[in-house]
Amino acid sequence: MRHRKPRYARPRRSPPGSPPGLLAVDPAAAPPRLSLMRYGPAGLAEIADPAPEDLAPRPGEIVWLNVAGLGDAALLQRLAGIFGLHPLAMEDAVSHHQRPKFEDYERHHFIVLRMPDPGDARFSAEQVALCLGEGFVVTFQERPGDVFDPVRARLRNPASALRGHGADRLAHALVDAVIDAYFPVLERLGERIEALEDIVVADPGPDRIAAIHAIRHELMAIRGAIWPTRDLLSAMMRDDSDRIGAQTRVYLRDCQDHAFQLLETLETYREVAAGLVELHLSSQSNRMNEVMQVLTLIATIFIPLTFIAGVYGMNFDPDAGRFAMPELRWAWGYPVVMAAMAVIAGLLVLWFRRKGWLGRR
Amino acid sequence: MRHRKPRYARPRRSPPGSPPGLLAVDPAAAPPRLSLMRYGPAGLAEIADPAPEDLAPRPGEIVWLNVAGLGDAALLQRLAGIFGLHPLAMEDAVSHHQRPKFEDYERHHFIVLRMPDPGDARFSAEQVALCLGEGFVVTFQERPGDVFDPVRARLRNPASALRGHGADRLAHALVDAVIDAYFPVLERLGERIEALEDIVVADPGPDRIAAIHAIRHELMAIRGAIWPTRDLLSAMMRDDSDRIGAQTRVYLRDCQDHAFQLLETLETYREVAAGLVELHLSSQSNRMNEVMQVLTLIATIFIPLTFIAGVYGMNFDPDAGRFAMPELRWAWGYPVVMAAMAVIAGLLVLWFRRKGWLGRR
Amino acid sequence: MRHRKPRYARPRRSPPGSPPGLLAVDPAAAPPRLSLMRYGPAGLAEIADPAPEDLAPRPGEIVWLNVAGLGDAALLQRLAGIFGLHPLAMEDAVSHHQRPKFEDYERHHFIVLRMPDPGDARFSAEQVALCLGEGFVVTFQERPGDVFDPVRARLRNPASALRGHGADRLAHALVDAVIDAYFPVLERLGERIEALEDIVVADPGPDRIAAIHAIRHELMAIRGAIWPTRDLLSAMMRDDSDRIGAQTRVYLRDCQDHAFQLLETLETYREVAAGLVELHLSSQSNRMNEVMQVLTLIATIFIPLTFIAGVYGMNFDPDAGRFAMPELRWAWGYPVVMAAMAVIAGLLVLWFRRKGWLGRR
Amino acid sequence: MRHRKPRYARPRRSPPGSPPGLLAVDPAAAPPRLSLMRYGPAGLAEIADPAPEDLAPRPGEIVWLNVAGLGDAALLQRLAGIFGLHPLAMEDAVSHHQRPKFEDYERHHFIVLRMPDPGDARFSAEQVALCLGEGFVVTFQERPGDVFDPVRARLRNPASALRGHGADRLAHALVDAVIDAYFPVLERLGERIEALEDIVVADPGPDRIAAIHAIRHELMAIRGAIWPTRDLLSAMMRDDSDRIGAQTRVYLRDCQDHAFQLLETLETYREVAAGLVELHLSSQSNRMNEVMQVLTLIATIFIPLTFIAGVYGMNFDPDAGRFAMPELRWAWGYPVVMAAMAVIAGLLVLWFRRKGWLGRR
Amino acid sequence: MRHRKPRYARPRRSPPGSPPGLLAVDPAAAPPRLSLMRYGPAGLAEIADPAPEDLAPRPGEIVWLNVAGLGDAALLQRLAGIFGLHPLAMEDAVSHHQRPKFEDYERHHFIVLRMPDPGDARFSAEQVALCLGEGFVVTFQERPGDVFDPVRARLRNPASALRGHGADRLAHALVDAVIDAYFPVLERLGERIEALEDIVVADPGPDRIAAIHAIRHELMAIRGAIWPTRDLLSAMMRDDSDRIGAQTRVYLRDCQDHAFQLLETLETYREVAAGLVELHLSSQSNRMNEVMQVLTLIATIFIPLTFIAGVYGMNFDPDAGRFAMPELRWAWGYPVVMAAMAVIAGLLVLWFRRKGWLGRR
Repeated sequence: MRHRKPRYARPRRSPPGSPPGLLAVDPAAAPPRLSLMRYGPAGLAEIADPAPEDLAPRPGEIVWLNVAGLGDAALLQRLAGIFGLHPLAMEDAVSHHQRPKFEDYERHHFIVLRMPDPGDARFSAEQVALCLGEGFVVTFQERPGDVFDPVRARLRNPASALRGHGADRLAHALVDAVIDAYFPVLERLGERIEALEDIVVADPGPDRIAAIHAIRHELMAIRGAIWPTRDLLSAMMRDDSDRIGAQTRVYLRDCQDHAFQLLETLETYREVAAGLVELHLSSQSNRMNEVMQVLTLIATIFIPLTFIAGVYGMNFDPDAGRFAMPELRWAWGYPVVMAAMAVIAGLLVLWFRRKGWLGRR
Repeated sequence: MRHRKPRYARPRRSPPGSPPGLLAVDPAAAPPRLSLMRYGPAGLAEIADPAPEDLAPRPGEIVWLNVAGLGDAALLQRLAGIFGLHPLAMEDAVSHHQRPKFEDYERHHFIVLRMPDPGDARFSAEQVALCLGEGFVVTFQERPGDVFDPVRARLRNPASALRGHGADRLAHALVDAVIDAYFPVLERLGERIEALEDIVVADPGPDRIAAIHAIRHELMAIRGAIWPTRDLLSAMMRDDSDRIGAQTRVYLRDCQDHAFQLLETLETYREVAAGLVELHLSSQSNRMNEVMQVLTLIATIFIPLTFIAGVYGMNFDPDAGRFAMPELRWAWGYPVVMAAMAVIAGLLVLWFRRKGWLGRR
Repeated sequence: MRHRKPRYARPRRSPPGSPPGLLAVDPAAAPPRLSLMRYGPAGLAEIADPAPEDLAPRPGEIVWLNVAGLGDAALLQRLAGIFGLHPLAMEDAVSHHQRPKFEDYERHHFIVLRMPDPGDARFSAEQVALCLGEGFVVTFQERPGDVFDPVRARLRNPASALRGHGADRLAHALVDAVIDAYFPVLERLGERIEALEDIVVADPGPDRIAAIHAIRHELMAIRGAIWPTRDLLSAMMRDDSDRIGAQTRVYLRDCQDHAFQLLETLETYREVAAGLVELHLSSQSNRMNEVMQVLTLIATIFIPLTFIAGVYGMNFDPDAGRFAMPELRWAWGYPVVMAAMAVIAGLLVLWFRRKGWLGRR
Repeated sequence: MRHRKPRYARPRRSPPGSPPGLLAVDPAAAPPRLSLMRYGPAGLAEIADPAPEDLAPRPGEIVWLNVAGLGDAALLQRLAGIFGLHPLAMEDAVSHHQRPKFEDYERHHFIVLRMPDPGDARFSAEQVALCLGEGFVVTFQERPGDVFDPVRARLRNPASALRGHGADRLAHALVDAVIDAYFPVLERLGERIEALEDIVVADPGPDRIAAIHAIRHELMAIRGAIWPTRDLLSAMMRDDSDRIGAQTRVYLRDCQDHAFQLLETLETYREVAAGLVELHLSSQSNRMNEVMQVLTLIATIFIPLTFIAGVYGMNFDPDAGRFAMPELRWAWGYPVVMAAMAVIAGLLVLWFRRKGWLGRR
Repeated sequence: MRHRKPRYARPRRSPPGSPPGLLAVDPAAAPPRLSLMRYGPAGLAEIADPAPEDLAPRPGEIVWLNVAGLGDAALLQRLAGIFGLHPLAMEDAVSHHQRPKFEDYERHHFIVLRMPDPGDARFSAEQVALCLGEGFVVTFQERPGDVFDPVRARLRNPASALRGHGADRLAHALVDAVIDAYFPVLERLGERIEALEDIVVADPGPDRIAAIHAIRHELMAIRGAIWPTRDLLSAMMRDDSDRIGAQTRVYLRDCQDHAFQLLETLETYREVAAGLVELHLSSQSNRMNEVMQVLTLIATIFIPLTFIAGVYGMNFDPDAGRFAMPELRWAWGYPVVMAAMAVIAGLLVLWFRRKGWLGRR
């Protein structure tokens, strides 16, 4: 196996040809940590490691079970049995690198999202699967740590409107929290792009192109996470079952609006990043021009002068005849030659200045 | 926090995970300044700081309340109560960077537009939200100063057709005013592009690429403002409520036509701007060629001559033998060598002229 | 105001915020010249400056009123009154830079086209607006001079099928004449592109890029005129009023076919023009390579030779010792050194020839 | 008129403004050569120059009239009369450069195809128009010579299934023959692209770019011929008249599949051709780098050495003082200087080797 | 015929114009090897070389006949007769280079897939055709060796769910196995792209561009295989016959999801590969800059020094006058000149360092 972390996400799956619906748990996955919130207009109960009898939904109450870590196939199978989750949904929940999607099974809706890791400098996301059924929401995360704390805070607040609504509103709140978590990610990325823009002009080099490509790749990864989320929300709003209430649909429209905003910002960033490549090319080419101009100026001025010096370094014998370099014996020969050289150099400098080449050095 | 103004608009939102419909007023926002126009076929009343009892719509009259500045959550809540505005609409009205959109709520339509700032040299836009309900239009702007003065003038004109129609015609007039405000913006941008085109040829350099990119970015920003406006108008024309009359729809079609015109002009500008990059590259490359040709000409002519001078600067002793540089002692040695050099230089110049390199210097 | 003609068409409109339907006549526009053709199976009457009573359509006859020049608002208003033309249509008819479109108003259809100026070397087009109503066609042109003469000739021909049909066939004939007028325009443009292609290879330079861009811009302008015409024709064929007969629709399909042909030719030209940029870049780069190769060859051959000449120009005293340049005193020293130089030069030339650099000079 | 053949196909039409349906025969067109096949389950009759009474379809028999050459308007009008062909169809049949299309007229279907010339090294195509009516197929070609011989052979074979079916199957067989004729065309083009790829690396130059562009242009032309054929087949399969039987539709689907295969191959070739441009650019740039490196190596090594030689060529008088070039008089001066030069040259070569520049020469 | 394997897949077909439905067997194709699996809830029978009477489907049992090798037209015709396969389907099954597709014939569904060869370093695929009928699945492969072994293993497992379902589930399992086989192919390709990325920076050259192009071409080929598979699955899920059960459709949706994942990964790889071209260009350009900078530095420093040395190598006679190079006779002349040279070289180095050119060497 490869030991380096691959640079580009590669799809992973259960072994080719294995039967669909197989719960192929990644052996390296963290053991599940369960946490339950059971609430209704009457009150809220939080249970850290719920027993099976705590899990089953009860009338008039909403159950939110969060499963962080997907390393125990038997436990997951048991949970699937309690809530009536479809084997294909469970298979997707445990296999990473699913694309965000919405699917309706007989007994529950199934939503896959990519949740950005707010702590990372570079964009990284883990998969969150959400099952929305009659009176319950079950969420599966790859590992503990998520962006759901504000939702938990709202549930804990007795005055929150969230408590008075059904499981569909909780599902919306969770989806909304995931989408909102992309805003600070894009904010940071925007700052990095601006910083890179300054560097590219100041000091072009192949490292810069690599940095631009890294950013473009992050943009692709974020787009790959948000783009299908938009379709997911459309599918949720179009859903013809009665699991999602009319009022929740209005809120989902709002949610989709945020997804659109994110996508437009991404589009802008993509164009800016594409422009960075051109900027880099131009900077490189400009630096090359500068170097060439210096060479040209120095060489063009000194080459004729050196030739003249070479001529007067020839060893023709001035005694050999009238035209055999008599100037070597003239008293003013040397000063005149030096002056001629100065005049030539001056004329060349003037010519360069008129060409605008000196001003640009 | 960053103190520099970010170069690329970044989406901003209420804190991630906060409940939707929260009126998250920007603490730096200006305090609202209200102005009311109440009119009907009978007449027009303008009230600068209307009291709550002035606000409520009355039968047979149209109320236009303009709110400039969004810094007072309590006041905005009160206004929402009076006109029956939906919490999600209010949330969108106060948060900047919404994309232009049209939404229908139970008691009113909700329109978001981006209004260009006509005074700015570079394109900048503020958000305008418009609520169109039964007998009223409420507009929310980020700050005082807008493009609605011609609409106000038409309302003040007793002969204006606008007075005799419903709130939908007023809404159209306001949307139309915003779209029309983009025409001078594009006019100015077109002039800047032409000016830049001349500069790029005359003096290429990495600054030019940066300027081209700035313009491309402005084009993207304007497109991002107008493109969804087109969809907004389609949605308004398709709207199946009776809040928008058949005649107003004809006028909206006209309005959409203008949006199309703007988008086509933008498309042309985008292609021209993309062409500028190529033009710049070609200019840079051409300048480089010029520099190289001068170096080549000078070097190519003088290198052989300098070599000859070097040969006759060798210190072989002419006394050593018959073939040991006897020419150094010849009376015509020096003139012959100088003439040979002149001939060689002349031949090279001729050759260059035939190659077409001298003509292009 | 700017006195230079802008290079890129910029949308113009009535002052922002002015009421729609305002007849904002351009003060610089030419005064209208009216010409009327009134015909039916029975005969044809041509009236150069028709009186108002000549204008009104009469049963069994078709009236074609051509208005060339849009500088008289009062007259245009009067005409609109006679034919029942909608204010929005009139506004569009007098404002230049409308995009081609088809609109149906209650009492007439309204068509905007861009008519190419057949006399111009570069593509330029003026706006033609056409109102098709019950028994009449009114056309508005910016100035006298059009592509309708063949239609007039057909009307004057008593045997022409055109006389026996309704106003819809006349409208088709006029639209068809406008579309056909683009064929010679593209023919000329094709010739210019081919000529430019030859020049780009022979003599690349930044002027060429500018010329390529000018052509690309013309292609964009032509496309901007034809593309919406295609939609216009679709809308006409789909039109559910009975103003356009079934047989005319068959002819419109033929007409649309021509628009498709034009668009495909344009698409080809666009790709060819895009290829010209690459060709230009390659030519430029090749010319640079040629120059560099000459420099390299000359320099590479003479630099070592000059070094050798420099060595034997050193002033070490051969009397100082056994190894202090004794060759300066050898009788064969000079010939041997010269021969060595010739050998070195020959070897270098051979090496260059094997590298294929001499063959490409 | 231009005497050179234009490089890019330009649309041609009857003179602008002429009435539609005019049979504008190209005066340079070949005179028509008619050939008739009349067949049924009973047998087959082939008539080379059929008389008018041979042409009319008879019940229980299928007539295929092939018209090669379009230079006789009167004859074509007569044929149109016999088979009831629509004037617009006839106009399209005789005017070259129609795009492939399917149209249904009252009395017949009308199909335009572009038939590749199998003998040409470069892609060229002539127009084939096909009228499919009740019991007859009429085909119009620009000139004799076509790809229909296998269809003729099948008709002559008494056992062929084709004989037992209607005119729709014959039309399918002809369309299929035209589409299949593109396969060898693409095969040859693929070989030319591969050959060009090898040449571009071995010997880049502006000729190569021209060759790449020629191939891209051929690809465009082929795509322009096949792309609309795909739509044509869709339209035929969707056709709601009963002229095309259910079984023939299954065969048309097969035919469309071949069109799809051709288009995918074209798409691949287009990407490969686009890649050739990059390859060419890289080759050119690499060749330039090679040249520059040779210059740099030679110059960099000899410039310091020549300087040293220059220093010891200075004419300071060693008698003038202790520090006035006493080394000129040292017995080991010359060998030491020569050794120093060798050492410097060696160090530079080593440095270049470490930089990896010598290995790439 | 060509003996080199063509680099780009070229479509192949039966000879142009041949009747459709002709079983044109490739003479070079391998002779068919048949293997049969007949199963039901009761048990499984595997027959290696089944006799004709073994083949026919029996009620309550599912038959899977796998035909590996397509070189025997008579046998294939016989099989088509037994299972009632349509001639067009058979023609497609034996002709390579069909694009993946789904077609429904009267008596069976017909599916074409491209199966990747898992053993190959470079992507290569063979065609698999699958006929799904009442109680049977027949698969045709170009040659023995496939990705179906996991499916066979599941059939051999008495506990497998596959045994209890109909032929549609078997067809799904086979299609799923083919799609899953692309995951390791993309995994390997991802590794090759990363490796190439490192090489491009370290050692740019035209070979790299060729390698990038080879990878881009592989990406195109894989995309050409998967893209239509997605449509195929959509068509299967939309299929309105009852050959595909509701439960199988849920599994097909899962299958389509995998196809989407593959396509997204491909899209990412395509963008990365496009970025590699830019990276290569930048590396090449950077290497050129490096070389030029070394030349410039060395030349710029030594050219003035060499000129000075040249001046003092001039043979003016110091005896000729006061200004005729008296410094040649000064005791400190030589040291002063040498020091001046050192100062000039030092100043130039300083200037270069301030320009940032030395730091980048």
